Amino acid sequence: MRAEIINPFISATIEVLKSMAYTDSIPGKPFLKNDYSATGDVTSIVGITGEPDATFSITFDSESILCIVSKMFGETLTELTQEVADATGEIVNMISGKARREMDKKGIHYDGAIPTIITGQGHEIKHISEGPVIAIPFQAEKGSFTMEICFKS
Amino acid sequence: MRAEIINPFISATIEVLKSMAYTDSIPGKPFLKNDYSATGDVTSIVGITGEPDATFSITFDSESILCIVSKMFGETLTELTQEVADATGEIVNMISGKARREMDKKGIHYDGAIPTIITGQGHEIKHISEGPVIAIPFQAEKGSFTMEICFKS
Repeated sequence: MRAEIINPFISATIEVLKSMAYTDSIPGKPFLKNDYSATGDVTSIVGITGEPDATFSITFDSESILCIVSKMFGETLTELTQEVADATGEIVNMISGKARREMDKKGIHYDGAIPTIITGQGHEIKHISEGPVIAIPFQAEKGSFTMEICFKS
Repeated sequence: MRAEIINPFISATIEVLKSMAYTDSIPGKPFLKNDYSATGDVTSIVGITGEPDATFSITFDSESILCIVSKMFGETLTELTQEVADATGEIVNMISGKARREMDKKGIHYDGAIPTIITGQGHEIKHISEGPVIAIPFQAEKGSFTMEICFKS
C-alpha cells in the first residue's frame, strides 16, 4: 500500500488545513480501486516524479472547500470564485511540498510539477495508469474531500 | 517563449493525432497569459519535472474529442463515456512520451508523472504558478482544443 508515501500526504493534509485554515479534517480508511473516479467541484492535481512516478490530487465538494477557504480568509465565501480556486492551489501546493520534505528526510525523493486547479460542478477525475490508485476519503468540518495518489505500475 | 520545449509538444500532438486517429489538427498562434483558464469538456493533465518543472495539459471541447476518438475506434461515438476518457488519456500520454523523447535527443530531460483525465461539461483549468502559461489553440477536424504548458517561474 506504499504507506511510506501515502502517510506523509495524509499527515501534511491534516497539518496544512489546521495551520492555514484552522480546520480539522478526519481521514477515513484508504481504499484501493483501479476503476475509481472521484467526483467533486474543485480539484487540485500535482504530478510528482520519483520512484515510482505518481500523481497526487484532492477533490473537494463545494461545501468543504468553501468552508476551508472562508476560514483561511476570515470571511464567508459562498461561491466558487477564481479566488477560491487560487487558494485551493496554494493549499495543495503546501501539502505537496510538506509531504515531499517529510519523505526526503527518510531518503525518498520526489519532484513536484506545477499544480493545476479544475473547477466545474460535478466533474470527474480519473488517473490513467495500470498501477494502483489509493483513495483516502476525508471528513472536513463541513462537507468532504477525497485525496488520491496514483502510482505508475 | 521556451520554443525548445513548446515545439516538441506541438509536433507530437499533430503527429499522434494523425497516426492514432487519422485526424488533422492545425495549431494557432501560441499566446502567453498568466491569468488564462482553458474551458472545455475533457482535459488531460500530465505533470512533467525537469528544468524548469512544468505541467502539460490539453483541454478538448466535446465535438473535437468525440470526433478524434470516433476515428481512433472506427465507430461513431456521441457521448463522453469512460471509454472516451480512457482514450483521451492514452492519446495525451503518447503525446507527452513522444515530446519528451524528442527533447531527450537534444539533451533536455523531463520525467512524466501519471496523466489524469477530467470530464465534466464546461470545467475550467488553471495552472498555479508565478511562471508563464503558454497556450496553443488547435483547430481539429471538428471542434477545437487548447494545449497549455505552464512553467515554474
